[in-house]
Amino acid sequence: MTTVGILGGGQLARMMALSGAPLGLRFLLLDNVTDACAGQFAPMLVGDYRDEAILAEFAAKVDVATFDFENVPAESARWLNARIPVFPNPDALAVSQDRLAEKTLFRELDIDVPDFRDITGFDALRAAIAELGTPCILKTRRLGYDGKGQFRIRSDADIDAAWQALGAQAATVGLILEAFVPFEREISVVAVRGRDGEFRHWALTENWHEQGVLSASLSPATGTAAFEADAVAYARKVAEKLDYVGVFALELFLHQGRLMANEMAPRVHNSGHWTIEGAETSQFQNHLRAVLGLPLGSTRSLGASCMLNWIGAMPDAQPVLQEAGGHWHDYGKRARAGRKVGHATLRADSPQALAESLARVGAALSRQTQVAPVIVRLA
Amino acid sequence: MTTVGILGGGQLARMMALSGAPLGLRFLLLDNVTDACAGQFAPMLVGDYRDEAILAEFAAKVDVATFDFENVPAESARWLNARIPVFPNPDALAVSQDRLAEKTLFRELDIDVPDFRDITGFDALRAAIAELGTPCILKTRRLGYDGKGQFRIRSDADIDAAWQALGAQAATVGLILEAFVPFEREISVVAVRGRDGEFRHWALTENWHEQGVLSASLSPATGTAAFEADAVAYARKVAEKLDYVGVFALELFLHQGRLMANEMAPRVHNSGHWTIEGAETSQFQNHLRAVLGLPLGSTRSLGASCMLNWIGAMPDAQPVLQEAGGHWHDYGKRARAGRKVGHATLRADSPQALAESLARVGAALSRQTQVAPVIVRLA
Ligand SMILES: Nc1ncnc2c1ncn2[C@@H]1O[C@H](COP(=O)(O)OP(=O)(O)O)[C@@H](O)[C@H]1O
Ligand SMILES: Nc1ncnc2c1ncn2[C@@H]1O[C@H](COP(=O)(O)OP(=O)(O)O)[C@@H](O)[C@H]1O
Ligand SMILES: [Mg+2]
Ligand SMILES: [Mg+2]
Repeated sequence: MTTVGILGGGQLARMMALSGAPLGLRFLLLDNVTDACAGQFAPMLVGDYRDEAILAEFAAKVDVATFDFENVPAESARWLNARIPVFPNPDALAVSQDRLAEKTLFRELDIDVPDFRDITGFDALRAAIAELGTPCILKTRRLGYDGKGQFRIRSDADIDAAWQALGAQAATVGLILEAFVPFEREISVVAVRGRDGEFRHWALTENWHEQGVLSASLSPATGTAAFEADAVAYARKVAEKLDYVGVFALELFLHQGRLMANEMAPRVHNSGHWTIEGAETSQFQNHLRAVLGLPLGSTRSLGASCMLNWIGAMPDAQPVLQEAGGHWHDYGKRARAGRKVGHATLRADSPQALAESLARVGAALSRQTQVAPVIVRLA
Repeated sequence: MTTVGILGGGQLARMMALSGAPLGLRFLLLDNVTDACAGQFAPMLVGDYRDEAILAEFAAKVDVATFDFENVPAESARWLNARIPVFPNPDALAVSQDRLAEKTLFRELDIDVPDFRDITGFDALRAAIAELGTPCILKTRRLGYDGKGQFRIRSDADIDAAWQALGAQAATVGLILEAFVPFEREISVVAVRGRDGEFRHWALTENWHEQGVLSASLSPATGTAAFEADAVAYARKVAEKLDYVGVFALELFLHQGRLMANEMAPRVHNSGHWTIEGAETSQFQNHLRAVLGLPLGSTRSLGASCMLNWIGAMPDAQPVLQEAGGHWHDYGKRARAGRKVGHATLRADSPQALAESLARVGAALSRQTQVAPVIVRLA
């Protein structure tokens, strides 16, 4: 009997446990809140990720550890890794936790990135803005997610407000300034690398964000022939460089035919949720296969899929359940503004059938704006 | 928040909980053993199904109840149904628990069955054998499963041994004698009926048994055009007559072009496990949708699937995990002779690709005899 420990007990851990159960696995979660939603389906320890007593209990009870949450302190991951196998390895985790380290690595690997500057203080910010121009984005180097820890600087007039909002964090988690990329598309490569170095990737996914939070994902992304091979090669290079094991996502901007890497998520990723129904093997099961050194499953798509995120509160399930290819995912979380509480995946055999399904669901739920850009791509 | 109570905590409850979690459901199991395998992923009460104190606790904690185990006493189901909604309804459960009541119902509905006799004593057995001839099968009316509670009477010389084996049960669970049908095929219809009467069925499944226990299932079954409509009509008639809500399986023999009903299972069924990966919506999720009055999901097949049962102990997972369409299901049970401990599903886009995959897995696991009859059908 193999027990997989998961640091973090949110929806990613929940879907991982549900998809790993058929492999005969047991799970143990560690989270800092008692009502983490994966705890509805797996035993959970509750405590601080830095607490060595609880880390020791966790390590004693699991055979291998992984993450649902990329912001687990890298030191905690290292502490654990001295005792049990931890995948992805703590160094890979540390790099992908830090926007500066991550972008520096991308550059080293000849992967284009939006121009960026390390921001250590207000003067550095002003100097950097003078170089990169506006618009640009000030971001925390670490601990940001779902658009949190970011400030968009449209013009020089926003500099003070930006510093007001984030300046205090220059000394704690660090800050980075990025040139704003008026991209045509956002694409992610969700991929998996095994313990033996085997690399597989799912079809490219196009993503749409609302206020920095993922709103919709379409896979296979359309019209990607010109850059698909590059995107996949980038993902592979990064994974090999970091000796990465498990599933990860590389987020890319497409701008004037040029790919630029935005960030890497060292875990199963929201833009890969469609793989549960839309691929032969889901990102969740393949992550576990990788972490356990099992053969990786086929990442082949089954038709075309679109994932719609539900933020804040769950909408009515009926319109989705009525679709032939409609699949519902309620994470069992309490409603709260801005919170990812669930998603739906619509799957169809053809782009046209998917577009029709999206149109019906969008209309029934009054979410036409959420589905509209996806429908455009399917036309 | 809706909590579904499941009477029985075996692999069916386990797969039901795993596939119902995305609907935002919680589960509570009731089983009479502490290590029932669904208990690894859902909270469980342990006690006797007849114990009113535990039934009361169960009823107080769930919104609706259903079964993983068809041999829950019908009185317990009725007791619960007086307090909370129970699906399928206890009368439907009672009929399908009793081979005599079930076959009598099939006849009433003009569904052909192997000839049968109620056996109340040794003299009745001898008289019945004189009428039905040999070979024939003596079975307990109730509580039999996986070929248990059956005795095959090849000739009159076996009568005493049959009575020795099962005679004592004439006075407890009852006995039935059935003519032996030298069938060409065994077919099941796995179907679902909603609270509103909506009826859907998955593609017909062909099944192979080893010593009375399911060994392999293939769906869509091949060469069924001549009798598919009848098989589905039978399933529908039975469900409507019983006002059945949920998933059930109707097991049929095909003999000289004639369909005969063997039995009905009032629950998700082993011959429907392939629907997890091989259909748009699995039998497990559709059972829950039905029980909760939600829209039923599409039962459309995704290519061709073959399920292989693992009995007694799990084989090596590698050969299955290496197949592009290979899906592993380890129920997390202890190995024990004759016990269903897991299954694999192989899925492919074409019958030929499925046959090739089966041949590879059969050879790698030295289970050529298990896969051989399926490969014959795919040729
Ligand atoms: N440099 C940039 N130029 C344009 N848009 C950006 C830039 N950085 C981030 N964004 C937008 O904000 C979203 C969230 O930012 P990201 O850096 O990916 O942070 P998070 O960790 O919250 O996902 C991106 O998916 C993209 O839509
Ligand atoms: N009357 C019969 N004639 C021929 N084979 C039978 C007959 N009854 C049962 N069998 C064989 O035994 C298997 C198990 O019997 P069944 O009555 O379905 O009991 P169980 O409840 O164990 O599934 C059947 O699937 C079939 O292969
Ligand atoms: Mg991002
Ligand atoms: Mg049977």
